[in-house]
Amino acid sequence: MAEYIESLQKLAEQFGRLEGVGKKNAMKMAFSVLDMTAEEAEEFSKAIIEAKEKIHLCPICQNITDREVCPICADPNRDRRTVCIVSDPRVVISMEKVREYKGTYHVLHGVISPMNGITPDKLKIKELLARIDDGEIEEAIVATNPTVEGEATAMYISRLLKPFDIKVTRLAYGVPMGSDLEYADEITLYRAIEGRRDF
Amino acid sequence: MAEYIESLQKLAEQFGRLEGVGKKNAMKMAFSVLDMTAEEAEEFSKAIIEAKEKIHLCPICQNITDREVCPICADPNRDRRTVCIVSDPRVVISMEKVREYKGTYHVLHGVISPMNGITPDKLKIKELLARIDDGEIEEAIVATNPTVEGEATAMYISRLLKPFDIKVTRLAYGVPMGSDLEYADEITLYRAIEGRRDF
Repeated sequence: MAEYIESLQKLAEQFGRLEGVGKKNAMKMAFSVLDMTAEEAEEFSKAIIEAKEKIHLCPICQNITDREVCPICADPNRDRRTVCIVSDPRVVISMEKVREYKGTYHVLHGVISPMNGITPDKLKIKELLARIDDGEIEEAIVATNPTVEGEATAMYISRLLKPFDIKVTRLAYGVPMGSDLEYADEITLYRAIEGRRDF
Repeated sequence: MAEYIESLQKLAEQFGRLEGVGKKNAMKMAFSVLDMTAEEAEEFSKAIIEAKEKIHLCPICQNITDREVCPICADPNRDRRTVCIVSDPRVVISMEKVREYKGTYHVLHGVISPMNGITPDKLKIKELLARIDDGEIEEAIVATNPTVEGEATAMYISRLLKPFDIKVTRLAYGVPMGSDLEYADEITLYRAIEGRRDF
């Protein structure tokens, strides 16, 4: 009968467009909105518009921000000699949670994926090259995902950065902490053996 | 760093308020909104407000609707002599999918749960009694969930309906189709044995 309630159906469709939301969950969410007060729904509705309006890309690192320059690029305590190249703003959030990395970031906004029409020119690569061309950066850590596309992007970028006189590194691959070796996949195990270190 | 992007954080909090949405998924959804075009976000925002504004309760069955009277109550082909009493509009949707039931509904909007402050007067019970008092209804099918609270509500309602000269029935309980008896819980199995039928 939900088909009969057009505005409920429409709202569920909107939720269904979000990443990782299935049809059933979308309807659950639409019902949650009905359970809200009119003020709460108004606030929710406004939050969507505000987020879209206020958030843009940092002109330096291309990360999303609601300020002129993102807080990381604006922070005088961050080490501008090191740049960590990531595919997505979400990775920046994960990295920052570690509280170990003190350099800056560069967000590519995707990985090279010709099958999906994502060619290098669709990524924020020329912005990266311009930053490195400025001469302040001494090390670039390529931190794309350890997937086929992530690896290909890493290789592409490392080759692009070769002509510059900087150190290009990448994250260590291996078995994740707390994991069970019995269930580790072969490629991860291979990487862990290949990258083994002395005690 | 998401903490730094206030409008993104706010939007994620709004998603986090929805039923069944955890913190991580809420942030994923907020990012999905950023991936939308301005028009899509506008449409999403409007869908929330519209659903809240247009949807109200059907004055007859108390189901949610965006019309004056809900399409089921307004349908001349539905059998007004049978009413199926459910806790929630979502149950109506599930029942309608079966395409077997031709009667009307009555939505209680909850089950009796004194621990959560839901006493019988918080449910649409007096509206149900008024409908039955009208004299058209001949059978009431109490279709609350087979949970402790659902059963208690069913018992309460069946007792309330006793003084009226109508048939009061409930759904059959048993093992669900396609299930594995090995994994069925004891209460379900007990109900299945208790309710066993001749071939």
